[in-house]
Amino acid sequence: MVEGRKGVEALLRSDFEVLLVAATSGFMESTEKLLKSLKRELREGLHEAEAQDLVKMGSFQTNDSLLAVARMKEEKEPATGMGPVLVLDEIRDPGNMGTMIRTADWFGIRQIVASPGCVDFYNPKVISATMGSFCNVDVCYRELPEFLKNLSSPVYGAFLNGDPLESVRFDKNAVIVIGNESAGISEPVASVIKNRIKVAGKGHAESLNASVAAGILMYLASVAQPS
Amino acid sequence: MVEGRKGVEALLRSDFEVLLVAATSGFMESTEKLLKSLKRELREGLHEAEAQDLVKMGSFQTNDSLLAVARMKEEKEPATGMGPVLVLDEIRDPGNMGTMIRTADWFGIRQIVASPGCVDFYNPKVISATMGSFCNVDVCYRELPEFLKNLSSPVYGAFLNGDPLESVRFDKNAVIVIGNESAGISEPVASVIKNRIKVAGKGHAESLNASVAAGILMYLASVAQPS
Repeated sequence: MVEGRKGVEALLRSDFEVLLVAATSGFMESTEKLLKSLKRELREGLHEAEAQDLVKMGSFQTNDSLLAVARMKEEKEPATGMGPVLVLDEIRDPGNMGTMIRTADWFGIRQIVASPGCVDFYNPKVISATMGSFCNVDVCYRELPEFLKNLSSPVYGAFLNGDPLESVRFDKNAVIVIGNESAGISEPVASVIKNRIKVAGKGHAESLNASVAAGILMYLASVAQPS
Repeated sequence: MVEGRKGVEALLRSDFEVLLVAATSGFMESTEKLLKSLKRELREGLHEAEAQDLVKMGSFQTNDSLLAVARMKEEKEPATGMGPVLVLDEIRDPGNMGTMIRTADWFGIRQIVASPGCVDFYNPKVISATMGSFCNVDVCYRELPEFLKNLSSPVYGAFLNGDPLESVRFDKNAVIVIGNESAGISEPVASVIKNRIKVAGKGHAESLNASVAAGILMYLASVAQPS
């Protein structure tokens, strides 16, 4: 289920199979036009609904535009060695997960691999926080130690005792591991990370927000020169 | 009002005047010890409360530890020229505001100047998202065009047509302007920004999350060599 104008329009432009769209009266005409221009047919059709019905169907307290239901995709094998890859170890907060998907899309990172304990990609709060980027990034769930052990690309993770970030030169296929919001990178995952880095702090904060730390690392990986 | 263990403990260690603390039974003893070790006397005392009372008094749906009430501080004149300064132009989302305060604290940025239309620093969701960092960063509200015009330090802002970030060398007293979540930097503020920069994207996302963009710029300013 995708809620809100931005997400639903991104969904309709994507290769997701969309079953139905519900729109408030103000959004019926523009949605019909968009469906026509995209040559999209919806199996369950386009329906007009009151804003309060969208709110009842959905999971958000306000939605005065659009809501859509689409079929979940089958997971593909993760694509590695074709640019940076983001790996998420037990990310629990849907806002963080969604923001990281949006940031990955911004920096052209197409693949995210998440541990089985991460929040579900199809959680409505994740989808919403991606601001439509859920259509552009593939997320698959894997046991991370096995996945990381078999990679040929270099794996980076942030630790308190890592090398300062300014001295790190990221590989163009860098695999960047982001740890849990409270506990950081788990021990079994840490044991297979060769490149230990540190986003050095100078103030009193105990830690960086996970999606901010991920954003800094994704930016640096995106500007890395080919090695 | 500060809710949750981490925030209340940070508050008690700070120079805020704390009026009262309410604690669930499991947190009474440790709070008494902390008050004694800090030689803190609370004008309205330490009170035991049920978790459900903390929830009723507070603004969050769960709080099984601590809640405190403190006096708001008077605004000080913004401290400039002593390291990077973060400037927020119409930031509306309390989670973004709080995360930016936390990130500023992490990178040793002590001063934030916010436009009058930004979310209130004392909004409970802002305080909570700072994870205690609200005690370490000064936030004051100013009309931004006037404030920025009179600065001697260089002012940077992100625009679609700015210079790529990789080519920018931040001044050690960089003043970094972050724009509104939807509209970006407003026109009156943009007109007084001399250093126009760009966090170049490679994917399809329309924009970066404001607190992620701010995190990248604060990181880069924090590692800037003295000019």
